[in-house]
Amino acid sequence: MLIKEAAIIKGDGLLKGQDIKIDENRIAAIGPGLNADRGEEVLDGRRKLAIPGLVNAHTHLAMTLFRGYADDMELVPWLKEKIWPLEAKLNEEDISWGVKLGCLEQIRAGITCYCDMYLFPDETASATKKMGLRAVVGAGVFEIFPELLGGVEPFLRRWQKDELITPAIGPHAVNTCSEQTLLFAKELAEKYKAFIHIHLSETRQEVEELKSRMVLSPVEYLESLGMLNSHLVAAHCVWVSPRDIEKLAAGKANVVHCPVSNMKLASGFSPVERLCSSGVNVCLGTDGASSNNNLNIFQEMKVSAISEKCIRKNPTALPASLVWKMATENAYSCFGLPLGLRAGGLADLSLIDLQRPWFYPENNIVSHLIYSMTGGVDTTIVNGKILMREGIIPGEAEILQSAQERFERLIS
Amino acid sequence: MLIKEAAIIKGDGLLKGQDIKIDENRIAAIGPGLNADRGEEVLDGRRKLAIPGLVNAHTHLAMTLFRGYADDMELVPWLKEKIWPLEAKLNEEDISWGVKLGCLEQIRAGITCYCDMYLFPDETASATKKMGLRAVVGAGVFEIFPELLGGVEPFLRRWQKDELITPAIGPHAVNTCSEQTLLFAKELAEKYKAFIHIHLSETRQEVEELKSRMVLSPVEYLESLGMLNSHLVAAHCVWVSPRDIEKLAAGKANVVHCPVSNMKLASGFSPVERLCSSGVNVCLGTDGASSNNNLNIFQEMKVSAISEKCIRKNPTALPASLVWKMATENAYSCFGLPLGLRAGGLADLSLIDLQRPWFYPENNIVSHLIYSMTGGVDTTIVNGKILMREGIIPGEAEILQSAQERFERLIS
Repeated sequence: MLIKEAAIIKGDGLLKGQDIKIDENRIAAIGPGLNADRGEEVLDGRRKLAIPGLVNAHTHLAMTLFRGYADDMELVPWLKEKIWPLEAKLNEEDISWGVKLGCLEQIRAGITCYCDMYLFPDETASATKKMGLRAVVGAGVFEIFPELLGGVEPFLRRWQKDELITPAIGPHAVNTCSEQTLLFAKELAEKYKAFIHIHLSETRQEVEELKSRMVLSPVEYLESLGMLNSHLVAAHCVWVSPRDIEKLAAGKANVVHCPVSNMKLASGFSPVERLCSSGVNVCLGTDGASSNNNLNIFQEMKVSAISEKCIRKNPTALPASLVWKMATENAYSCFGLPLGLRAGGLADLSLIDLQRPWFYPENNIVSHLIYSMTGGVDTTIVNGKILMREGIIPGEAEILQSAQERFERLIS
Repeated sequence: MLIKEAAIIKGDGLLKGQDIKIDENRIAAIGPGLNADRGEEVLDGRRKLAIPGLVNAHTHLAMTLFRGYADDMELVPWLKEKIWPLEAKLNEEDISWGVKLGCLEQIRAGITCYCDMYLFPDETASATKKMGLRAVVGAGVFEIFPELLGGVEPFLRRWQKDELITPAIGPHAVNTCSEQTLLFAKELAEKYKAFIHIHLSETRQEVEELKSRMVLSPVEYLESLGMLNSHLVAAHCVWVSPRDIEKLAAGKANVVHCPVSNMKLASGFSPVERLCSSGVNVCLGTDGASSNNNLNIFQEMKVSAISEKCIRKNPTALPASLVWKMATENAYSCFGLPLGLRAGGLADLSLIDLQRPWFYPENNIVSHLIYSMTGGVDTTIVNGKILMREGIIPGEAEILQSAQERFERLIS
């Protein structure tokens, strides 16, 4: 496949007239004047910007089925009255259509890879693969569902060599998993070189509870278990102390900042700039659509930047270039994926329509992507395959309809 | 014009199959089974949601030309090094294309009416009228440009009977206008029953400066001048005390909450829920694109709701239904415009494509509009005229190009 005459980002400006040659699932070359082979598919890149695929590093994709079902509520009634009763009814079909619905939205937002944690990881992986997205799928583990434990190792084995899916382990959090369960996750992670995807220090209550029980903060507790390392993907990290931040950095752990969900659930504001400046690798995530309520990394980028400025009383905090890095390079490095818009990289990218008012005047393109873009992802390509072309995703209407039917079954 | 079989909002759900009959610039009827007259234009409303026009109650539309020119900077260098040198070069043509660029973006975001304050109000009004939007245009008045004063009354007279433009007076702020200038604005406002559009208590510095000079807060100062009334449109109101809030409510003044700009400039978080619960009429605004950097009320609604929840540590704060009211009914009431999706109302409305993943599952539509919608305004109608149809705005490319040329002239 050849994309002809697209613009790419160079510094904070546009470099126009670039051809992008895709060979199987890799970018073969980028530059002006590349020629198409006989019969090769050619996409018109003129007046479009090619960006590397964005990564949504923390979500629960099947929960897209619960979008808008319960908002503006306190956490405990939200869980007890709304979410848990629906979760108790979930079956494989629900997961599959919920995941596909979430994939549609991510494709429309230029997200080419996401990191999940939930029930039914096999269905999540299968549905994602059918949709063509890349994902790190964490098999959710909670103390209240001990029957899940036995499924984790077979899941890791089944998906270990998949081209699109990286299987992982998802112990829910330090206050919802026993020490035994956390150590079980650690052992399997070491055996399979798998990621551990966990909620960490999300709420003040979680931290206070653990401290009163163990004297340690959640970060210190994971450290004491030998779990702070580059295979840890720790979502939220809202209530982390300067000492916790040092430990996360020293352990080379990855943190996923989820500002929209943290704000909507009133969990608090993460000290994200301090995490970054302390050397922690920080990525961005949407969390589930039931607490966001969308799956859009452009929005996380803007909200990250503006909320941090206001909280730190400093308009220079978390500049556009840094949040862009969080959504791209930091995430590629976290998951060890050879991504990025470069020769040799996996062909995960989007084309964005530049002929929209929010890109004018043409000026600092990184600023426009973060602070002003409000739509216009035109084409999304993952692993060399076109998932959306000029705004059209084949089969979208059927997925919307099926997701609707699954939701109606759940609430009936 | 007849819109056939659209959905409308009923409670927090969808009422489908509604026809909307538009007669000249008014909505004549809404209901099922309405028939088109011979030769009447018919729009297909199926799988679309009709919403009443959103109001952007505080902006500086010509500043759309400065979008992305200077971000992530402290206020004083931002103004001195970046904005003021460009403003010094502005001429009528720049204003006209900057306003048109801003109108394009607002049309794409379902904004049908906006309230402005800036230089060259005649050009702002003319360009807006050409684009077909409705606007309350405040003639900006600053102490540093005393030559502007003489133009205000002729401007008010010229536009007084216009169908789309409501002329207003825009004294910049209490710390950038002398008492004499504020009283001049008050006198003209009374004479012409015009709105006063002002920045009020935006920054902590503004409040502290005034208090040290006058003992009064900016709100108390305006009260002492007899300016707290229903014709006051006070933007920002970040640093207002409980006493200020009482006075704003007692005076029936209108407040425009601009959370994105307040956060990006690190001005602070406005006590917006307290303003609402105290009976102040609160609307929403984007501020200029140079400090936002877009013009999108959907984004202001979401950021309003989630930031207030987090600041108040209460996930039930500022629910979706309340922010929806701020962007619609509160603004209609502020500007005394007979808007809304109802028979007899002015025909200012949008059609939104419901076949998008962020509207699924179909559920609480108000929640989806505020928390998950990330695009899909399909058609925008103002005063009975179609400004955008199925995503197409006639003449858009030329406006983008001309705005680009004006920007390049300014920075050359």
